[in-house]
Amino acid sequence: MAEDKLPTRAEDFAEWYNQLVIKSDMADYAPVRGCMVVKPYGWALWENITSWLDREFKETGHVNAAFPTLIPMSFFEKEKDHVEGFAPELAVVTHGGGEELEEKLAVRPTSETIIGHMYAKWIKSWRDLPLLIVQWGSVLRWELRTKLFLRTAEFYWHEGHTAHASADEAKEEMYRILDIYERFCLEEAAIPVFKGTKSETERFAGAHTTTSIEAMMWDKRALQSGTSHYFSTNFAKAFEIQCLAKDNTLQFAETTSWAISSRIIGALIMVHGDDQGMVMPPRLAPIQAVIVPIYKNENEKTKVMEVADRIFMELKSAKIRVKMDDRENVSSGFKFNDWEMRGVPLRIEIGPKDIEKGTVALARRDKPGKEGKTFVSQSLLDQAVSGLLDEIQSSLLKRATEYRDANIHNPKDFEELKQVVQDGWAFSYWCESTECEKKTKEEAKATTRNIPFNQPEQEGTCIVCGKPSKRKVYFARAY
Amino acid sequence: MAEDKLPTRAEDFAEWYNQLVIKSDMADYAPVRGCMVVKPYGWALWENITSWLDREFKETGHVNAAFPTLIPMSFFEKEKDHVEGFAPELAVVTHGGGEELEEKLAVRPTSETIIGHMYAKWIKSWRDLPLLIVQWGSVLRWELRTKLFLRTAEFYWHEGHTAHASADEAKEEMYRILDIYERFCLEEAAIPVFKGTKSETERFAGAHTTTSIEAMMWDKRALQSGTSHYFSTNFAKAFEIQCLAKDNTLQFAETTSWAISSRIIGALIMVHGDDQGMVMPPRLAPIQAVIVPIYKNENEKTKVMEVADRIFMELKSAKIRVKMDDRENVSSGFKFNDWEMRGVPLRIEIGPKDIEKGTVALARRDKPGKEGKTFVSQSLLDQAVSGLLDEIQSSLLKRATEYRDANIHNPKDFEELKQVVQDGWAFSYWCESTECEKKTKEEAKATTRNIPFNQPEQEGTCIVCGKPSKRKVYFARAY
Repeated sequence: MAEDKLPTRAEDFAEWYNQLVIKSDMADYAPVRGCMVVKPYGWALWENITSWLDREFKETGHVNAAFPTLIPMSFFEKEKDHVEGFAPELAVVTHGGGEELEEKLAVRPTSETIIGHMYAKWIKSWRDLPLLIVQWGSVLRWELRTKLFLRTAEFYWHEGHTAHASADEAKEEMYRILDIYERFCLEEAAIPVFKGTKSETERFAGAHTTTSIEAMMWDKRALQSGTSHYFSTNFAKAFEIQCLAKDNTLQFAETTSWAISSRIIGALIMVHGDDQGMVMPPRLAPIQAVIVPIYKNENEKTKVMEVADRIFMELKSAKIRVKMDDRENVSSGFKFNDWEMRGVPLRIEIGPKDIEKGTVALARRDKPGKEGKTFVSQSLLDQAVSGLLDEIQSSLLKRATEYRDANIHNPKDFEELKQVVQDGWAFSYWCESTECEKKTKEEAKATTRNIPFNQPEQEGTCIVCGKPSKRKVYFARAY
Repeated sequence: MAEDKLPTRAEDFAEWYNQLVIKSDMADYAPVRGCMVVKPYGWALWENITSWLDREFKETGHVNAAFPTLIPMSFFEKEKDHVEGFAPELAVVTHGGGEELEEKLAVRPTSETIIGHMYAKWIKSWRDLPLLIVQWGSVLRWELRTKLFLRTAEFYWHEGHTAHASADEAKEEMYRILDIYERFCLEEAAIPVFKGTKSETERFAGAHTTTSIEAMMWDKRALQSGTSHYFSTNFAKAFEIQCLAKDNTLQFAETTSWAISSRIIGALIMVHGDDQGMVMPPRLAPIQAVIVPIYKNENEKTKVMEVADRIFMELKSAKIRVKMDDRENVSSGFKFNDWEMRGVPLRIEIGPKDIEKGTVALARRDKPGKEGKTFVSQSLLDQAVSGLLDEIQSSLLKRATEYRDANIHNPKDFEELKQVVQDGWAFSYWCESTECEKKTKEEAKATTRNIPFNQPEQEGTCIVCGKPSKRKVYFARAY
């Protein structure tokens, strides 16, 4: 499999992506419409993603819990916007235990409703707040056009649901989480993102405010990579989440919800991958370094394997996620291609000449060919490898940031905007009217991504209608 | 809530259990028939259970992956026994995205079928074997009579699914996993278990052999606490999992599956809990030690809190899961009851007299009252606490083992068996006929639990029919 070449990104980006997911062994198509199987290599990546986030959430006072997968249909009716947003996408259980159900149940598309119902039961007083719960699991939204990781009917995520005594506290929570998401993207995923506010049209169904992090893929389309919502008292009113405040009055709680999903794996692929396959950022890579021992006969094998095994143990003790590829039935060339396809950041080659010289060859995945290859001493190799992994991590972020920034344009008028969003983003003043947003969508096929928190000092005029505008927005074609 | 008393176990064991689950804050009833909400305290316990198991599985070469929650109904038809076992318990999705589905989908009750389908696709050669995959998640079986943790429509678990090149390897895997389960119960859960083989009647739907670990609850009923199945080629034939063997012939794979579910939390409660509430074994306890500072005025508070805070930090650095209960709105007595209900293994009391003497009071949850209380020096407290937690852990296992062994009987005939299983287990020779098993079920209301691997040297005669019998079996009433 790994010897099959991918189409290049320039030739056919969509097909490059589809083949990469399969050939890197991260996921497979499931025999259920729109669903995927996340294979062990893809799931190991997801576990590295989730364990970082889980630790951050716990350090900021959040706790995990589990709510039912099935939600009574009537729950969706309680929040008007929410039902409009989600009703068309529901998978519905009508029969259980061989009988037709009195009330139909939906496979959860998101859990605001059922968690809201429980919060109403649990929250009695301001002393019960804030309530900061995260649920890890999967949800299901009936999608017609699917793409592995990026858009599947069932996908994996965490959903945070918090309730607070005041609007300020709830908003603070929304921003705190968005900061964690940004830090995850920068430090772990090596993906630069813009934090900002979504337009009214792009808001989550039922939210007062939706904030997001937005990333640019290699094909210059945007991917919303995480969202954090402030609901004001919308869901609290719909589900009667009320508590006795300090002043003894009965008040509705202020709630938030937020999520990053397995979609982020799609972003990792489309930001870092290249024509040879996946490129994993070292901090998330299931395998950070792979050892490929090279020999031609039993005599060489004995000598090489002795050193290879020792190095394997050394790196393992240094907490480097290392893999030994001692397969006998495939060539070294096959192995190189295989690990390149899977995106292992560093390859360690050990051959008979290295044994003589006391060296190994290190080959960087992010810099193919001679440019990324160095020969280093076997002594203190763990430090050399750790250092190089750090360097690869920074280098990936730098490259992605430069690429993104080089492809964001400042068009002078709407005609130019229509041009630039064919192959890049526009960062332009916008009057924040739905009308101008709609026009951009129709005529430029671009949507507003977010209104970033970082804004220029001065004001300007709307790129669409020319009216005075306070803030700039990112316009882009998006996944 | 915590001040409400439970009924005693002797008064009403079922009601004691139901109230304990709620009052210890581990779970709540969900607004969906038969489902539960696992609350943060219960989920933290589950995370401690799962992280131990996950580590063991990974160390023995297993990897995690994720398969869809929904399974095409036709998949169940492929294995005759499997469909008979599971069809009556399925929750069925008939509509998706507003339209009726061409093929109905079941919410997974277990994943042998869909994983078998994928294995058939992935496994081509003996080099692809063994394939050792674990899936963590929830499954759904339509249950009419439910009980939190013990029997709920949706429950949480891991399901291991492995494929091997030979029957011997597959059986070895089945036993290897059962050993991990036993070690988990002994070392972590402090629950003694018997490993053994299930009777044909009690076998998993579609299995060739089902092995289990069986534990005795406080009310002397049995709880099947984990199962490990060997399928022979049953599922491989149903799903066409075939591979090219070393001798170049096409052969069916040999498969296994195995699971421990959130039911084990029910076992923890019913083995260790007492009339004051939950008793957590230290190694799994979400909170291992709780500090309760005691003071009457601001002056005392300042002095006490200084020491309490220091001790909190010391214990935290020593990786003890410690909690500071500095609530101002409830009395110390309320706090004591609250943490006893939640089963925290150790309470650390610090009052003004302790400050003078340089001591703290340690109160063991497993030995209520004066017997479990000691006063120790504040210096090297982390070592004293660790030592005591270890002692509590062993003590719980010892107590549970003695209790179990004292309640296993060796009845001389079927009449006596009928007596002893009213309030204990019988360990008796059995001819392994379904007839004798059925008679015991009808007349004694007891089922065969398992035929333990450890058997007496000699043979005997069936306790039911008197025929010669090779092995003894545990008979008991079971959950």
